[in-house]
Parts: sequence; structure tokens; C-alpha cells
Amino acid sequence: MVIKYPNGKKYAPQSQASSLPPKLKQQNYSNRGMTLEEDLNETNKYYLERGIAVVHKKPTPVQIVQVDYPKRSAAVIKEAYFKQASTTDYNGVYRGKYLDFEAKETRNLTSFPLKNFHPHQIDHMKMVEKQNGISFVILRFAALEEIFYLPATHLFDFWDRMKNGGRKSITKSEIESVAFQIPLGLHPRIPYLSIINRLHF
Amino acid sequence: MVIKYPNGKKYAPQSQASSLPPKLKQQNYSNRGMTLEEDLNETNKYYLERGIAVVHKKPTPVQIVQVDYPKRSAAVIKEAYFKQASTTDYNGVYRGKYLDFEAKETRNLTSFPLKNFHPHQIDHMKMVEKQNGISFVILRFAALEEIFYLPATHLFDFWDRMKNGGRKSITKSEIESVAFQIPLGLHPRIPYLSIINRLHF
Repeated sequence: MVIKYPNGKKYAPQSQASSLPPKLKQQNYSNRGMTLEEDLNETNKYYLERGIAVVHKKPTPVQIVQVDYPKRSAAVIKEAYFKQASTTDYNGVYRGKYLDFEAKETRNLTSFPLKNFHPHQIDHMKMVEKQNGISFVILRFAALEEIFYLPATHLFDFWDRMKNGGRKSITKSEIESVAFQIPLGLHPRIPYLSIINRLHF
Repeated sequence: MVIKYPNGKKYAPQSQASSLPPKLKQQNYSNRGMTLEEDLNETNKYYLERGIAVVHKKPTPVQIVQVDYPKRSAAVIKEAYFKQASTTDYNGVYRGKYLDFEAKETRNLTSFPLKNFHPHQIDHMKMVEKQNGISFVILRFAALEEIFYLPATHLFDFWDRMKNGGRKSITKSEIESVAFQIPLGLHPRIPYLSIINRLHF
């Protein structure tokens, strides 16, 4: 059921959703089509099946505490906790290059909040860049259905601005000036390799 | 407590251990020092902290079925199942190159059983090689404390031989002839990048 609030928008518990693991996030959005994660999984599957690139989403990190071994059936995890990821969600290889990225979405219309990223993810992307990997983020403005490829080096600039007391988000116009809009397709849905082809080959 | 069997060897439940997820495997070996996974985690941490390479172990894939949200405390996973991994356990970037590998150990003395690998892992490594990534396996002969770096292309040959009705393992002497023994250290414990430096730079 979709609860309509006085402003006419669907209820989407933003801060809660962004701290939940991906599997659970999907439930919040199940009424309004595909999530960014599903679209990227479809895209990566498309690339994989055609031998174009090998990119996978990493499993959600879980701390397992208790496991039962029932007779004649699979082991059941009875107690476990979500752990903070220490890296980004996606990585893989494309034409000899290492790809590493994170995907985030916002319901905002005019800016992208930096709280979507964790400090250790930024640190991870900086280390990847130092090893000459290709690091970036895929940003989705959900209400506008616009998706951007932002090279990590630009994300670092906005992150450092915040650390130095500046704004806690990236404005939409800043994104439009330094990021690359990914033209959405049907198959694959988010052809991000087209941007990598332009920037790195 | 260590149970001694008539042959004087410690009891190590081989087949069970190899089908359990890594976290649980460790319990079986806790009395006899570090596991291969712990040694590799230490090695990757060493490389990471010094800015030498960015390589991580992927989380164990888990299918989450039920989650409780107790008041004022963290979400608890109450029912979940281990999933088969569709890729290898380790990947990352080193001097612009994509690294992708699996690590396995055996108590055998004279051969390495191929049942340690799953068909989809072999498929994954083949796709990585096609994308010009560096794919390999780290094989540990636990009783001998010898560790080898076997390029994936050689693993494919032994795998195909088995598929064509040949032996279900790689003999120790075959490994000695096509793999590279990794000289063990104290810090890092398994300096596998030394082999990559020799083969790829």
C-alpha cells in the first residue's frame, strides 16, 4: 500500500532506507519499478553474458554469530548482524582496467547529499585511484530519472569542501558541469561503459 | 583439545571443512595456528596500509530471509542461508592491473584435489582472463606448509583434463613444474605480489 502524505508525495523513509542493506531497501521501492541496484545488476549481467566486462556487486557483509545444522537440510544462520562495508559495492575488470564504483540515489531534486557516502568508502576510492584503477560513483536523481557518472576525483573535491566546513551536498548544477549523464536504455539499462570508453580509451 | 588419532595426526574433517563457509572453517584449525584465509587477510592488510595494492576478500554471500528490528538496538538477522559464491573470493587492483584469485588448501601430501573448485569459479576466471585481468589460485599444502601461485590458465588445463575423463586432482609434481612457490614471510606472510612482479611487470 502506498501512503500519500499531505504534499502528495509517496512516503519514502530516506535516512532509514540509506542505512539499510540493499536487499531490504528494495522493499521500500517495490511499488515504483526497478531500483538502481536492480538496474545495475541487469546491466552487469548484460555485459557479463556478452563477454563485454566482468563486474559484480559484492555480497552484503554480515557478521555471523550462530548457525544451526539441522539433519538432512541446509545450515541455517540463526543470529547475524549487518556490518559496515569497508569498500564500494561494485568492482570488476573491463579491457584490462580495474573498475570500482558505488551507486547511490536521492529523492532530492536540486542536490545530492554527501551523507550517502561513508568516509571509509572515500578512502577506499582514493587508494584505488592511486593504483591507477578507474573509480567513480553512479548517482541517481530518482524523481527526475536522471543518472550521472561522477569520476571519483571530483567526488573527493566535494567531500574535502565539506570537511573544510563547506556545504554537505553537491548541487545539481555542479553535477551537471563535472559529471556525465548516462543515457538510459532498455538493454542494458544503465550503459555506464559508454562513459568509460569516452574517458579512458 | 587436540584429539590424536592412531596415525598420530590431528583430526581434521576434510570434506566437511571444505564445504563450510570460511568463518566456520577457522574453528577447525584454531588449534594449529593461522589459516590460509587469515594469512591472506594479514598480507592484504599489509599491502593496503603501505599503499602497495588494494585487494580485499569478498564477504560470504548470504541469503537473508528474516530480520528483526528490536527497539534501541541493531537489526538482527534471524534466518539466513549460505549461498554458493558465483565468483572467486579475492579481487582488487595493483599498479593498474586487475587481480582476481581464489585460495584453497589441502591436507593431502602428493596431489591437490580439483573438487576444491566449483565450475562457476572456473568460468569466472576464464572471463577475467578474457578481459586481460590477472587470474590465479593460491594453493596451500597444509601439512607441508608449502604455498604455490598457480596461474589460472594452467588450472584450466587440469580442469579440462578432468572434464575429459582424466584425473580429478593435480599432482604435486605437476604443480611444482608449472606453479610458482611463494616464499613465506613474517610480514607479509604470503607475498604473492612478488610472483606477479615477475610474471607481469
